[in-house]
This record gives sequence, C-alpha cells and structure tokens, in this order.
Amino acid sequence: MDTRPIGVFDSGLGGLTFVKEFERLLPREKIVYFGDTGRVPYGTKGRDTIIKYALQDIRFLKSFDVKAIVIACGTVSSVAFGEAAASADVPIISVVKPTAGAAARCTKTERIGVLGTSATIGSGAYKKAILELMPDAEIKSRACPLFVPLVENGYFRRDNQLARLAAHEYLDEFSGDVDTLIMGCTHYPLLRGVIQDILPGITLVDAGLETAKATVKMLEQNDLLSGKGGGTRYFVSDSTDDFARLASIFLEHPVADMVEKVEIEKY
Amino acid sequence: MDTRPIGVFDSGLGGLTFVKEFERLLPREKIVYFGDTGRVPYGTKGRDTIIKYALQDIRFLKSFDVKAIVIACGTVSSVAFGEAAASADVPIISVVKPTAGAAARCTKTERIGVLGTSATIGSGAYKKAILELMPDAEIKSRACPLFVPLVENGYFRRDNQLARLAAHEYLDEFSGDVDTLIMGCTHYPLLRGVIQDILPGITLVDAGLETAKATVKMLEQNDLLSGKGGGTRYFVSDSTDDFARLASIFLEHPVADMVEKVEIEKY
Repeated sequence: MDTRPIGVFDSGLGGLTFVKEFERLLPREKIVYFGDTGRVPYGTKGRDTIIKYALQDIRFLKSFDVKAIVIACGTVSSVAFGEAAASADVPIISVVKPTAGAAARCTKTERIGVLGTSATIGSGAYKKAILELMPDAEIKSRACPLFVPLVENGYFRRDNQLARLAAHEYLDEFSGDVDTLIMGCTHYPLLRGVIQDILPGITLVDAGLETAKATVKMLEQNDLLSGKGGGTRYFVSDSTDDFARLASIFLEHPVADMVEKVEIEKY
Repeated sequence: MDTRPIGVFDSGLGGLTFVKEFERLLPREKIVYFGDTGRVPYGTKGRDTIIKYALQDIRFLKSFDVKAIVIACGTVSSVAFGEAAASADVPIISVVKPTAGAAARCTKTERIGVLGTSATIGSGAYKKAILELMPDAEIKSRACPLFVPLVENGYFRRDNQLARLAAHEYLDEFSGDVDTLIMGCTHYPLLRGVIQDILPGITLVDAGLETAKATVKMLEQNDLLSGKGGGTRYFVSDSTDDFARLASIFLEHPVADMVEKVEIEKY
C-alpha cells in the first residue's frame, strides 16, 4: 500500500478527461493535477518549448513526493516522452501507448484515424505505436489545431456552432474511410458529442479513458495502490476562477475550493 | 536625432500589423520586436498573468536601450497599460487610444463596434476611450476568442473556410447596426479580407495602422526621430522557424535570418 499521490499534468483542461475516468476507477487514490493554463496551448508550439515546459511540470509534481506521474497530454506524450521519462525518477505513463493499443484492439478493418495537435501529428508517435502492434494497419492522421482553443474557451457542447463547424472541417474526410478514430489529445473527449454526431458509425478511442485504465494496471503491477484516502488537488498557472468554472462543468462537481495557483516558471 | 531602436511587443504575430505600417511610414527607424510565441495567446488569460507577462516583455525590450516602447497588443493595452507605463521609463504607447480616436473620427452614425480578445472586451478599455471622446456614442462589443488561434495557425487568408465560419459567428450581429468597427487586437487586421467580405459596407479601423501613425507623432513630439539606419530585429519565445514562415507571408518579405530566440521568463 502506498498512500502517496499520483501526479498528473496537461497544458490545461484536457487532462481532466483522465481525472474523471481515474477517479471513477480508483476513488481511493490521491491526485495532484497541474494544468499549465498560463501557457496553454502546447500543441502549436515547437519541440524545444514543449520539452522545457514538460520538465518544469514534472519538477513541480515531484515536489509533492508523487509515486507515479501521468502525462495526461497528447502533445507531451508524443513529442517529449523520452525526456520526461528520464527526469521522472518514478514510474511514468503517457497517453500514446494505451490509446494506440485500444485502437488496435477496436478496429475490424485495420483502418485507423488519428486526431491530435499539430505537434502530436507532426511527431508521428501514434502512427508508430499502432504499426508496432499492427504492421499492416492503414493510418490516416489529421492535426486539429483549433480543438484545444475551442475547449479551453468552453466551446465544447454538442450544440455549439463553432465547435461543429471546426469539427466538420477536420472530420469530414474520415467519413466511410476508417472504422476507429483516436482522439489523441486529452482535450478532444470534451468534444465527443460533436465528433460522434459527424461520424456516427465510428468507434472513438478516448486518450483520457485508456490512459486511466492503463494507470490502474501500472499501479497494481508496481504494488503502488493506496486503498484509502482519495481526493484531488488542482494547480494551475493562470486564473484559478476560470479553470474552476470550466472544470466544474466538465467534471460535474464543484472544484473551486480545490484549485491553487503556481508560478510554474520557477520550477 | 536619436538612433536608438524602438521596442515593440505582442503575444505573437499580431504586432506585425504595426511593424508593417510603421516600416512604411518611417523606414529609417530601428525596431526591436518581441513576440511571446511560447506563451501566446494572452487574450484568454487572466489579468495577473497578462500583467506578469507584459512586465517581462518590457524588461526584455529595455535591455536594448530602446527610446520608446509600443504595446502592439490589444490585450496588454486594455488590461495592463497602467502597470506597463509605470515600468517603462521611456515614452510608451498603447493601441487603445489611437484606435478609439480613429473610430470616433470615422463614424457618421456614432454607432461603433469593437472586436477584441476576451480580456480586452472584459476590460471595457475601448468603450471607455471612445466615450471620453464621444459621450453619446453607442458601442457594441464582441469578444472573438478564436481569431488569435486562427491567425497564429496561419488560417487568415480570405478563402480559408474556418476563418470565414468563425468570422460569421462573431460578426453577423454587426450587419446594419454599426458603421465603424474597431479591429481591437493587432492580430485581427490579418483577417481584414475575411471580415470585410462579411461586412462590406462597414469602415474597419486597424489597431496596427492607427498605432503606427500615433507612434510617428509621438516620436516627432518627443524629438526622438532617427532619420538614418533602419531595420528590424525579431525575437520570439518559441520556434524561430514557425514565426519566420508566417511573418514572411504577412510582411511580404523574408525575415528568417532576423529572428532570434529568447528565454523570456528570465526577464
């Protein structure tokens, strides 16, 4: 039994898709969440910048004596996993492998789509992970650079006109082409309703959910489960109020008292 | 005669709308430009974060012994002008006053629209500046939080479908209502063609252009004109390549060799 918290980070709100699923699966684990809302988005930025930010995020989480770290960010997982793992000193998990594995299990046609940020798609990380499991798979990837700004501005509801228009622009080309589509950025499951409306027959693979399941397994295998306690502390690098408002909508419970601000560039 | 450079900053590419006009008006002035591309956008972030970033940007520019500072960013101009001016030690100009003044001169109906980032519109700065000049003006404001991500991702050409869709969402309500519309964020003039197509009869006021004209006047009045030399150095906090590519498209001349990277959080 290990009652230390796990550390989770993302560029902003996206990692909450992991938190929501993980809290459901293992309510007795403590979480320290960091959302880098002062520097969001990551996925349109360059490799050096993404690595620098990821290492600061990890140094911050390590100050809580975390027992494991979850990179709940598709961009960091794709672009900076090696650097992140080398600096972590504790078991670390990224969204790419669990999500690619789930897609390979789901597809019947071996035709898989991947959505991600510009940095994620540019890295080819999902494609590589799928091909390791399923060498004959055909993979079609698409960068969706407006999805993170849409989510971070609260434009993620099914009836939001701008979200629907952007989704059509990015997704129409997948219709009838792939049977399985990876939402490879943890922000995207907030747009699940919008995406599913455009591609009703497709199986959507949720990076947040798959990573939550893989994290449970990793904690079990490393004998790191807690079994008592629980609760999540949230840290952000921008306004706590804005984060608390959107996080409460998404998580469907209030978080206002649990959000604190951190000067992340000091780490 | 004062051959020192002027310092110009923005969250990213937007301030180039100032640079383009200013270089045309005064080709013999040296410019040091900083675009905070590692932390862009500013306009969706909180007041404290915007102030912190603005003060770092100014400290960086001051390291070049600049003779004046131009806040070529609608968000900083609206939210943090007082703090910025207090830290500058040299003449400083923001986009709000010159742009509000131009709108007040242009309107015939005294019905003026204002577009800006969420932070800019939330501050009410343009509205206040217009009402000081024209107390009976009717002002209709609209935050356009997707315009900066669109521009920073290169989606600003007239035929770009996503830019057109977002512009319809934000602008349709202005049709037939106002005769003059302030593009109150320096990114927005890159979308001028898209905006004008939707509102063909309206006079668009360009924060970059108006601030360039006001800066010329300010340099003249303070006896700070150079009259020899010229040239612009560009600094960014993210990848120099991405900036150089988009900046070259917008400025219509190559800038690749002139872009350098800076660790802005050290200032």
